[in-house]
This record gives sequence, C-alpha cells and structure tokens, in this order.
Amino acid sequence: MAKAAKTEHAKKEAAPAAKAGAEKDVDFFEKIMSLAKRRGFFYPAAEIHTPIAGFWSFGPLGTAMKHRIENLWRDAFIKEEGYYEVEGSNILPASVFVASGHLAGFTDPLVQCKRCHAMHRADKLIEKAAGVFVPERTPAAEVDKIVADNKIKCPDCEGTLDKTRMFNMMFEVNIGATEPRETAYLRPETCQINFIDFANVYRAMRPKLPFGIAQIGRSFRNEISPRQGLLRQREFTQAEMEVFFNPAEKAFARFAELKDYKLNVQRVGADKVEHITAAELVKKGIVKYELIAYYLAKIQRFVNGLGIPLEKIRLREQDPKERPFYAESAFDCEVQTAFGWVEVAANHYRTDYDLGAHAKATGKDLTAMLDSGEKIIPHVWEISEGIDRTMFCVLMQAYTDDKARGWEWLRLEPKAAPYAAAVFPLVSKDGLEEKAREVHAALAKCFDVLFDKPGSIGKRYARADEVGIPFCVTIDYDTLEDGTVTIRDRNTVKQRRVKIDELQASLWNLVFCGAEFEKIGKPVK
Amino acid sequence: MAKAAKTEHAKKEAAPAAKAGAEKDVDFFEKIMSLAKRRGFFYPAAEIHTPIAGFWSFGPLGTAMKHRIENLWRDAFIKEEGYYEVEGSNILPASVFVASGHLAGFTDPLVQCKRCHAMHRADKLIEKAAGVFVPERTPAAEVDKIVADNKIKCPDCEGTLDKTRMFNMMFEVNIGATEPRETAYLRPETCQINFIDFANVYRAMRPKLPFGIAQIGRSFRNEISPRQGLLRQREFTQAEMEVFFNPAEKAFARFAELKDYKLNVQRVGADKVEHITAAELVKKGIVKYELIAYYLAKIQRFVNGLGIPLEKIRLREQDPKERPFYAESAFDCEVQTAFGWVEVAANHYRTDYDLGAHAKATGKDLTAMLDSGEKIIPHVWEISEGIDRTMFCVLMQAYTDDKARGWEWLRLEPKAAPYAAAVFPLVSKDGLEEKAREVHAALAKCFDVLFDKPGSIGKRYARADEVGIPFCVTIDYDTLEDGTVTIRDRNTVKQRRVKIDELQASLWNLVFCGAEFEKIGKPVK
Repeated sequence: MAKAAKTEHAKKEAAPAAKAGAEKDVDFFEKIMSLAKRRGFFYPAAEIHTPIAGFWSFGPLGTAMKHRIENLWRDAFIKEEGYYEVEGSNILPASVFVASGHLAGFTDPLVQCKRCHAMHRADKLIEKAAGVFVPERTPAAEVDKIVADNKIKCPDCEGTLDKTRMFNMMFEVNIGATEPRETAYLRPETCQINFIDFANVYRAMRPKLPFGIAQIGRSFRNEISPRQGLLRQREFTQAEMEVFFNPAEKAFARFAELKDYKLNVQRVGADKVEHITAAELVKKGIVKYELIAYYLAKIQRFVNGLGIPLEKIRLREQDPKERPFYAESAFDCEVQTAFGWVEVAANHYRTDYDLGAHAKATGKDLTAMLDSGEKIIPHVWEISEGIDRTMFCVLMQAYTDDKARGWEWLRLEPKAAPYAAAVFPLVSKDGLEEKAREVHAALAKCFDVLFDKPGSIGKRYARADEVGIPFCVTIDYDTLEDGTVTIRDRNTVKQRRVKIDELQASLWNLVFCGAEFEKIGKPVK
Repeated sequence: MAKAAKTEHAKKEAAPAAKAGAEKDVDFFEKIMSLAKRRGFFYPAAEIHTPIAGFWSFGPLGTAMKHRIENLWRDAFIKEEGYYEVEGSNILPASVFVASGHLAGFTDPLVQCKRCHAMHRADKLIEKAAGVFVPERTPAAEVDKIVADNKIKCPDCEGTLDKTRMFNMMFEVNIGATEPRETAYLRPETCQINFIDFANVYRAMRPKLPFGIAQIGRSFRNEISPRQGLLRQREFTQAEMEVFFNPAEKAFARFAELKDYKLNVQRVGADKVEHITAAELVKKGIVKYELIAYYLAKIQRFVNGLGIPLEKIRLREQDPKERPFYAESAFDCEVQTAFGWVEVAANHYRTDYDLGAHAKATGKDLTAMLDSGEKIIPHVWEISEGIDRTMFCVLMQAYTDDKARGWEWLRLEPKAAPYAAAVFPLVSKDGLEEKAREVHAALAKCFDVLFDKPGSIGKRYARADEVGIPFCVTIDYDTLEDGTVTIRDRNTVKQRRVKIDELQASLWNLVFCGAEFEKIGKPVK
C-alpha cells in the first residue's frame, strides 16, 4: 500500500460537506467507537496506562471479526488461486530498505511552526492553503519555495514556518548489545518480504508464471497524525499479494471466470464512476493485461461480499502524479463512508521495479524461467488490503440505529460476523443449560459460537444483535421433548424451529451458502 | 514465558554428551536446516541481503505448518474452553513495562572481554566455569564479585573481563516526530496485553471466574546469542493464555475430564520423571489447584498430539531460585531432542502479581466480582507456548532418513502437516489434469491441499513424503471410468481406492479423527 497522496478531487469529497453533516458524522463516529469499546471490538492499546495515539488493541469480538476477514481474504486470494502464503519477520535489516528505496524515499515533508512548535505535513498545508498538489519525493527546498511563494503560515497560530525536513516514517530498531549495533527497521509494508523471499519460494515450490506470494501481517509507520479510529494507525494489519507474471503475456487463464463482471471504475479526470466489464476494461486499453482486470474485479467482489453495497465501492484510477514512483498504473479500491471515500485496498502495477532493485542490490538471481527456457524478471501486480480499515468500513456500513427495534445493531454479513451464532438456554434450570452447552460444543467444532446465559431472552437477543451475531439458537422446554431448537434471524427477527441433528448443516447453509432463512426447518408453532 | 534460566541439572542434559554424539547432532541439525530451506519451511530473514542473526522467514510450507499448530492450540486452549482470544499491538508504551517490571528487571548480565571485546552472558560464564547458579535479578556488583572470586576469564582468549552491565532485552522504539519523542518498546512477551486489557475484556464479555484471555502473536527480544535455528530467536511467535481464577476455589469444573490422565512430572531435585495422574498431583499437594493439574495435563496432551511421544515429554518443576520472581510455582513443558531437553511451553502460577502491579500503577479497578458480590484481583495460571520452538521440535521428531525408502521424509501427524493431502494427475493429458484440478478444488474447500504435476509419480511421492504430506491422491485412467482415485498412505506407502464422492469424508476421518487407513475405501486391484 503506497503512502496515500490524495488528489484535490478526492480530498474535496473526503471533507465533511456542511457543518450539520460534520456534527452528524462526529456523532456517528462516537457511537461506533463507543460500541466498539463497550462490546470488546477494539480500544486504544494500553488504555489503562498512558496510550500513545495510533495503537489499538482488539478485544474478543474484534479479534474474531478480524480473523474472519483475514480468512475470507486468504480463501479468495491465496487458496482459491492456488498461490503461496508466507510469513516474514517484522524487523528487517536496513539493507532491504536501501534496496527498496524506503530509506531514501519513504518520507513525509514536515514543517514546524516557529512560534507554537506545532508540527504539520507541509504537503497537506500547501494543498489546503494554496490548492497546489505536492507529489511524493518533492525535494525539501522546492517545498520551502512553495511555502514562501504562497506565504503559507501555521494554521494553528499564524506563526512563521521553519524549513521543511524530510521525515522518514519507518521505526528504527537497534539489534545486539555491542556498539556499533546493527540498524534495522520495522517493516512499513508487508510486501517487501514477498519480493526478498521470491527466489526461496520459487525454488521451493517450482511454480510457473503467473503465481502469487501473499502475506497477512503487521506493518508499522510513524504517522504524524494518526486519527479516525482504525483508519490511520501506526501499527496495522495488511494482506498483501504480489502476482508475478510475464509482461509479454496479455492473456490470463482464469480471466473467463470474471470477464463479464461489472467494475465501478472512476478514471483519471472523471468525476463519476463508469460501470464496465472486465473484458471491456482490457478491450478499451484501460488496463494492459487480463490479469489486472481479473484482480480488480476480484477485489471489488471481495469488498462487496463483506457487505459493502456496490454503489459504495469504486476503483479509482490514480493520477500519474499521485502514483508511487514505481507504479505504472494504480487503482485504489475505495469505500464510501461518513468520512468520504476511504481507501481499503491499493492495487498497483509495480512492473519489475522491486525484484530488479533487490537483484541489483544483492547480485542475486531473481528471475523466473519461461517455457521457452528464457529467464525474465517477472512483473508484479500488487493487491494491498488494509485489514483494519476494511473492518472499520464494514462496521460503519453495518451500524443500524434502529428506533423501531429499540436498540442499535450491526447488519453484518453472516460470514464476516465475529460469531456465526449465539446459543442460549431459555432458563438455566431443568437441564436446559446442560443441553444448551451440548449444542454449543457441537456447533463450536465448525463455527465461532457464543454461549450466553444471564438475562432475559429479549436482552440476550439485543446483546447478540448489537455485535452483529446473525443467528440466535434457543434451547427451551420443547427441546427436551422433541429435539428441536428455535433459530432467530437477526435481520428480520423471524424465528424457525430446527432439529438439533440438522442445526449444523442449516447454519452452514445460512452462513456460507446464502440459504434463505424461510427455507430452514419449520415455522414456530 | 520467562527468560529461561536453566538449572545446572538441565544444562548438563542439554549439552551434547560426547564428541561423536555432538558431531552426529550437528549433522542432524544441518539436514533439518537444509530440508527446511530447500522445501520452503523457513530460512534466514532477508537472506539475499545481509541477514541479522535471530530473524527468520517462513516459506509456504512453514507458514502452512505454523498456522496448523496455531490453530490446533487455538482449538484446544481457547475454543474448547470457551475462552477469549485478543490481539494487541506489538508496540506498547513504556509505562506498561514500568508497571510490569520489565524495564527494571528484564535484563541479562553482560560482560565484555577487555582484550578481544567479545560479549558474554556473565551468568552463563559463571555457571560453566565455577558451577555457581546466578539467579535472575542478581545485582551487577554481586555478579562482579563472583567473577573476581572465581577468577573467571574470557572463554575465547583468556582476557580479563570488564565490569558487568545489566542489558535490557527489550527493543526500544521512538514514536512521533517532535522531540522529546515518546518512548515505547516492542513487547518481549504477548501476555502483558492479556493483563492490561483485562478490564476491557471483563466488562465486554461479563464472564465468571475462572476464564481465560489468550493471544497468539509475535514477541521480540534482543537476545545476545540467537542460535539453534528456531530455538532462540529475536522475533518469535508465542501462544499465551492467562487463566484468571479465584484462589479460594480449589475445585475446577472441567477437572473430571482429565483427572485420570497421567502426567510426566519431574520434581525439583528428582533426577527422573514420575508418571502421576492429575488427581494424584492435587491430592499429594504437588500443585495447589485442580485447575493447574488440568492445564498441565492439557499441555502435555497437546504436545503429545503433535507427534512427540510421551516418553520424550516432561513437565519439569522449576527450582524456586530459577523461577521468575513473580511465580509461585512453575513447570516447564520440555521435549527431548538431539539438543537435549527443550522448553516448548512455560506454565506459571503468577498469583495476582501482574494485575496487582498494573492496578497499582494506573489506579484502575482490575477486580472481578464473585457470586457473593465480593471483588477480588483474580490469580493467574499462565500457559506460554513457543510456537516456533514447538514446530522445530515436531520437525526434528518427524525427520526420518529412510535408507530403505531411498529418501528422507517427515513422519508428521496428519493434523500438524502443512498439507493434508497432495493431488496428482498420473499424466497431464487425456483430461486427467482437468479431473485432478477438479478434485483438488473440491478438497481445497476443506483442507490445505497441494497440486503437483511435473515429474514421475515416484518422484512426486518422494517430494510429498519429504514435506510430510500424509496422503497422496492420484487421478488415473480408471478415475475417468469408475470415478475412483488411489489414496496412498505416507507412513506405510500402502494404497487404497476411494470413490471421489467419499474422498472428502475419508480424508477428514484420516486427518482429524485418526481413522485406520486399512478401513478407507477398497484395496487396489
């Protein structure tokens, strides 16, 4: 995921439109954050101590939901494709980031106010105050010139700004006990592992092009102004895949599966989305390879499958000047939220830049062999999903403040919910609790299932709705007689009666196969 | 997991017994490391650049196997128990480690040779040269006195040693862009999250005591001498659970399930293992609580379930002087390997030390309420499994250099193997490859399955054996006629014929339910 430099256009959209709207958004944000903390989704890391901004901790519900999203991504992008998952270290030697260009270029231009000492992102200030876009890697002296030419002052106190300094966003870590210690960095993106381990994976697995190396793990960035809950953190989870391919090969074997899928593409300079099939995307030359159209379709379908409606998803083509320097083309998969369009997955055509750079720096052979016997440095299509951001967008979309029902609840897709079901005994006596624990234990072999006992059934339904549990299973006195239980649908609050023997299969069909609730079991008498 | 300070007794055992043995061990180690790299289990992080000792990268096979072990742990200790999994940040503010005691006490006593500048662990030198055990937290001046009294010199060059300095093993990270920056640390153990998030989890989930908070994640320690492959790393994965309980309650509801399970306990001062049931362990007062006996039994059963024979597992009671200062009793779950006994899981009765310390430092209420209404700071039983170490021990145990078969292979437990099965087309023509891909795709919905095409069937069997794939499924010409495939058992190299319709269920029974291979499908004609 590149350091996002939004265009003027995107910025305008992301800003709250009017004051009333902004207040509503703040209120909405507070409600989500309150629910997240109260019910154990997430809260600031080390909250009982002195938390540092930009670090979060996931509670049981958040961990379960995060793992659900990670596993859905793993299924879609790694397992379904037959690609390879790797897991590298978070700490990497400096030499990796010399070669990748991060040590020189993974920087933000910072200016400090001489009067109030507030620190600002110079590019953001300039864009806001003068409407000038400052591309990545603009030298500090040029930034200073723009500040001077436009007479830009501190937005907090109108003070004079000091000279720009380029601030590297990587966290440095020193290894060993004897001086000089070895300098290493916490990785600012997971994907460098996918490049530097390329030769090891290629030799071990002997794949033909195209193939993918993917990783789900933490990344670390010393953001100046972490904000908006999980949207801009200093430590976050990425799911990144590099698809290595032969740039001479325009066709892609699996393309037929998604060629008629309609993508929401917003082209550079366009102010709205076009609905265009993957096949047309290639035919019109908007993308150069079938493989790119396929994975753009796949990422849109993935985000949509998590419960984000199609009309709130767009694949925004990046302007050449906002693209990372290594990218030949780039599409941000964005989701419309109360805070404007939020990037949830970056998609970059990185060419052979990274493998080439690591090969050059190390002298190692990072080529793949074609059927012809020719060796090439493969080109790379990268999919970089921000897992926490995706989860936060899914939560915002699912949040429902239901006046009629009387409580707030989460309309989460069953497969993305932290628990597939909750199991309740109607009361805790007469053997109902024991029976409920039995049912819970059987379901727990296949699903994440909550057992909840205290309180009235109504209160337990409300609590389950609030965390988005799609189905509640209640064990009552009839259960002991006829071996059936009630199952309640969160969205409609309707109930059906299902035999315990069939419960596991019914729940599987509901959660993973989109079965209709009305066709499960029998109506409640 | 405490900073392991081995007793004299354990050290003696861990050292190679004789020179011939040592050479054999080195050879064995090289073989494992070579297989691990060649087949994509693991290799040094950033190997193509300039790797730093103690950091590793997992390839596709290693990642799959590591995830298998993590998921088995998750199933056994979190899901089966109905406990809570959390996921905290790797970077935590300094205040957490002031309260936990790590900033003051998570140190190694280091001495540098004045002549050759080699750095040594003073406690290790003293133990080796003078047979004196140096407990954790011994002040530097006392260490210096022992060095002087025993005239201990540099083991490399016989030079004089400089004064001892206490070296903190945590990695420091600086946050923010303006000085003074905020000081934070990479967590040296995952479990501090389980303590500092206790109140958030307790309020969100409303459990009764006893209950557990668990986490699987990375930890970071600036080890002076990382060594022995995955056994001593600077970045590693832990699975840690804190079970919070009421110390006035000796009984534990699930105790009956494991009361007759026999544990291999080696008591302080004993030179061999006793086989003793969980019930006897409590009755004889070796442990104070049923809960402790239950989880000791469970950890032994877990490690055994991964393929380590019972006679190679022991629960070694720690001597009071080697226990971490906060632990009232401690048992290391150790596995016998070519390198002696290796600790794979630490088990500590941490009392109310940690919650008490965080409550004191923050002024926050970290109590739980009993049924009586009384509020107490719960006591903690901790299980701390080193995932990489466990995996490495399992690999060493599984390694089989089979002269008769003609190739080396891994006798991995099916449920701990990186792939449950491999699918091969006999040849790549006449529709066999397409059929094989169909079978592979169907199995891939439930299992990690490898598809392998190139080379003779014999070579593919050898390759599958080498990475411990327990079952190979071959699609041949008969498959097209009668819808059956052959399935081959890695351990016996026997084959059976199974209908494709029944393949998924058969494989499930073989991998997860311990079904007998001879009872699957029909004999090969």
